[in-house]
Amino acid sequence: MIRSQTVKEILDHYRVIWALGHAQALMGWDSETYMPEEGVKGRAAARAEIAQLIQRFMLDEKFVKLLDKAEEERDLTDVERGIVRVLKRDLRFYTRVPPEVVKELAKVTSEAFVAWRGAKEKARFDLFAPYLEKIVELSRVVAEKLGYEEHPYDALLDLYEEGLTSRDVESIFSTLEPGIRSLLNKLEARGWPRSHPLEEAPYDRPALEAAIAEVLDLLGYPRGRFRVDVSPHPFTIGIATPYDVRITVRYRGVDFREPLFSALHEYGHALYELNVAEELAMTPVGTGVSLGVHESQSRFVENVVGRSREFIQRISPILRRRLPLLSKYGDEDLFYYFNLVRPSLIRTEADEVTYNLHILLRYRLERLMITGEVKVSQLPELWNSEMERLLGVKPRNDAEGVLQDVHWSHGSIGYFPTYTLGNVVAAMIYYKHGNVRGLVSEGNFAAVKEYLREKIHRWGSVYPPKELLRRSFGEAYNAGYLVKYLEEKYR
Amino acid sequence: MIRSQTVKEILDHYRVIWALGHAQALMGWDSETYMPEEGVKGRAAARAEIAQLIQRFMLDEKFVKLLDKAEEERDLTDVERGIVRVLKRDLRFYTRVPPEVVKELAKVTSEAFVAWRGAKEKARFDLFAPYLEKIVELSRVVAEKLGYEEHPYDALLDLYEEGLTSRDVESIFSTLEPGIRSLLNKLEARGWPRSHPLEEAPYDRPALEAAIAEVLDLLGYPRGRFRVDVSPHPFTIGIATPYDVRITVRYRGVDFREPLFSALHEYGHALYELNVAEELAMTPVGTGVSLGVHESQSRFVENVVGRSREFIQRISPILRRRLPLLSKYGDEDLFYYFNLVRPSLIRTEADEVTYNLHILLRYRLERLMITGEVKVSQLPELWNSEMERLLGVKPRNDAEGVLQDVHWSHGSIGYFPTYTLGNVVAAMIYYKHGNVRGLVSEGNFAAVKEYLREKIHRWGSVYPPKELLRRSFGEAYNAGYLVKYLEEKYR
Repeated sequence: MIRSQTVKEILDHYRVIWALGHAQALMGWDSETYMPEEGVKGRAAARAEIAQLIQRFMLDEKFVKLLDKAEEERDLTDVERGIVRVLKRDLRFYTRVPPEVVKELAKVTSEAFVAWRGAKEKARFDLFAPYLEKIVELSRVVAEKLGYEEHPYDALLDLYEEGLTSRDVESIFSTLEPGIRSLLNKLEARGWPRSHPLEEAPYDRPALEAAIAEVLDLLGYPRGRFRVDVSPHPFTIGIATPYDVRITVRYRGVDFREPLFSALHEYGHALYELNVAEELAMTPVGTGVSLGVHESQSRFVENVVGRSREFIQRISPILRRRLPLLSKYGDEDLFYYFNLVRPSLIRTEADEVTYNLHILLRYRLERLMITGEVKVSQLPELWNSEMERLLGVKPRNDAEGVLQDVHWSHGSIGYFPTYTLGNVVAAMIYYKHGNVRGLVSEGNFAAVKEYLREKIHRWGSVYPPKELLRRSFGEAYNAGYLVKYLEEKYR
Repeated sequence: MIRSQTVKEILDHYRVIWALGHAQALMGWDSETYMPEEGVKGRAAARAEIAQLIQRFMLDEKFVKLLDKAEEERDLTDVERGIVRVLKRDLRFYTRVPPEVVKELAKVTSEAFVAWRGAKEKARFDLFAPYLEKIVELSRVVAEKLGYEEHPYDALLDLYEEGLTSRDVESIFSTLEPGIRSLLNKLEARGWPRSHPLEEAPYDRPALEAAIAEVLDLLGYPRGRFRVDVSPHPFTIGIATPYDVRITVRYRGVDFREPLFSALHEYGHALYELNVAEELAMTPVGTGVSLGVHESQSRFVENVVGRSREFIQRISPILRRRLPLLSKYGDEDLFYYFNLVRPSLIRTEADEVTYNLHILLRYRLERLMITGEVKVSQLPELWNSEMERLLGVKPRNDAEGVLQDVHWSHGSIGYFPTYTLGNVVAAMIYYKHGNVRGLVSEGNFAAVKEYLREKIHRWGSVYPPKELLRRSFGEAYNAGYLVKYLEEKYR
């Protein structure tokens, strides 16, 4: 597979970095699932040491030189070029951003997370504001150091989604915003259901766990390479892609939709990691390419497949057998329950239609913060007025407003747009294939998965996101598909 | 705590080694508990890389020099001296045994394990013999390279139990062998029970799991720092001593003694790790000092406490409430069931009385193999005839004879005697304290645990095993206590 002697040497050096990354992944998974509480005292120290070690091996002079040399080589294969590209990207942050800044950012964000948690509990933005100010300030420095062509925010976007620019995001939202708002008006006029009694209904947890296992079985549960656990926040992790991929689910006791669709969501992420070509395993291109493309896979399984009438018909016998509370509801009932549309305050609880307006709000505020056009102190008011303008709802306090998401406390500015990107790409895949619902209706999930494997999964990070999408679908981020998909679905 | 500047620098360097060890421990635990089967493909590579990395940091020239320097320093505290001693020991193997030999040993043992598993399945020693021959040969080289004073086997013993010599082991068995054989004769004459109907009785697994959790609660289950999982072979692991210690249990479906006493056994190991002084955490002396001393703690909880009439009285209400199959058995019944004495073929199933004869057999054979007095090809015959002489039973095939244990396939020659050492020290602690059964009878487990903490646990690896025992109990390995304990218990 690898012909270039230089790239061979790069991979030799990379092997230990991969091993340390594997250990980090496992420590992360364990911290969220099984680690006894006080274990954090040792774990935090170990993770910090190993993160430093990874950085040290990445910045190794010989390694950096090998990468420079490989970059100059002609005749590299696509995989070889991908390896060099991904490692160069990883290096860029450490070579361009001065160590003092990286260190300060690490310090502020670890304090900011604690402050954010307290501030949210008390619904007091002022307790979090000083940390966010510092984070915004440092992010501006990071953006300048990383460099950009048009807008400093582009440098931050690129950290989460290779090659994504404000221009892309603007273009997406210029299509989405009017499309969604027009659809919302129509749905209101037509009286599309906004609530359902099952939202408040408690479920039997072991029964729901068994139902979810059966649903995942239906989709093809790769027993030897995959597992499902429970954690406070659901997530997917490739412990050793594609051999060991794990997801988690959360059970809160009411509204069985939540664990069911979050399991489908994470399963979508997992499929991506499970289907990366084995020959890429343990190399820098051996995992999903970006947050946005990853999110397209999770949203595809969760929404495009999972919330379709055809899928509901396949899984409703399982749900009804396991959950007696469904006895009086037909498939059409379930369809509306799974597809309620209700402008609401909390992003993570938002439906398919309103979700992207939540992202639009955050994207606009982030951009304005980075340029300094908006001060951190102005955020709560701006948040609330924009929520009212976009969604017609107004937070009663900052906990259900500007403080709701953890991202900024982690220093993640530029992350949110990847969620919308996922929705955009998922809808695009739906139309590019052309018969997803037909296959789902036949129960031919294998054919759906094979399409995703061939078009997205198998390539790992060999191509940057836009290039991958253009190669596979002829275009990259066209938000028109998402508007069309929503219009057709909620007709 | 640390005053020496040199030792401070040593600990600074050691921090990353500790972190890598932590990652290794977690990877080991995960491999045995939750890892999906195919995960091994990535895991094996990651573990090998990280093991190499640890070795590299251990052999770092600057680090080795610091250790040499610290060794010369006067006025080191006991903790500081312990740190230097433990690290020097760890280094010794790598500095004295040539890398080719280490590499060859790694290669042979990884093949030998697979060969052993196949050989045991087919009960054919000849399939394993060539690997064992190679292992014995390499072990001889290792012993010569490591050096010894009296006997090459001493060099191997010391790998598992610091300072243990053939002379110690001979002395132990010269007391134990006649003592046990005489007791066995008496028990036979008096008709001590050899079997019980509950041995074949199936149990309800969730009920037994709940019962075991309650029993561990009774002993003091440190929720925030400890957990119990299920694995094919029960074990204890200090993921981050003393903050995160985990044990596993196995459920086979019949004979509820097995999971119950293996949980108590592992809990004894766990207590040791949980009670190491927090100031030693993440240092080279921050875990239990040796296999033998560790085994003394597990045997103490399992046998001295766990199989006593007093303990049975405390836990029998729990067992009876959870396990309806016990309804017709009184406490005295349980006592005999838990303390059957029956000369048998399999070490891991052996009772407290006959167990050490299984170890004696292995010890003698190992020593003769290392000197070359016995050839690998002679082992099966010798094993069988010795089994008959020592225990009066004869294996029908090699699977229940010479092939039963995994240790030799791992290259572990010199390991077995630490099991007997554990039994010897457990009995010694019993008499040194003087009122263990009194405290158990009152349910005052806290006082028993405090004694163990004070005498053994808190010291971690600060003192070598013999010194620790002499400081705490005035003597080291006195097998007389074990004979006395058995005589009194089985009177």
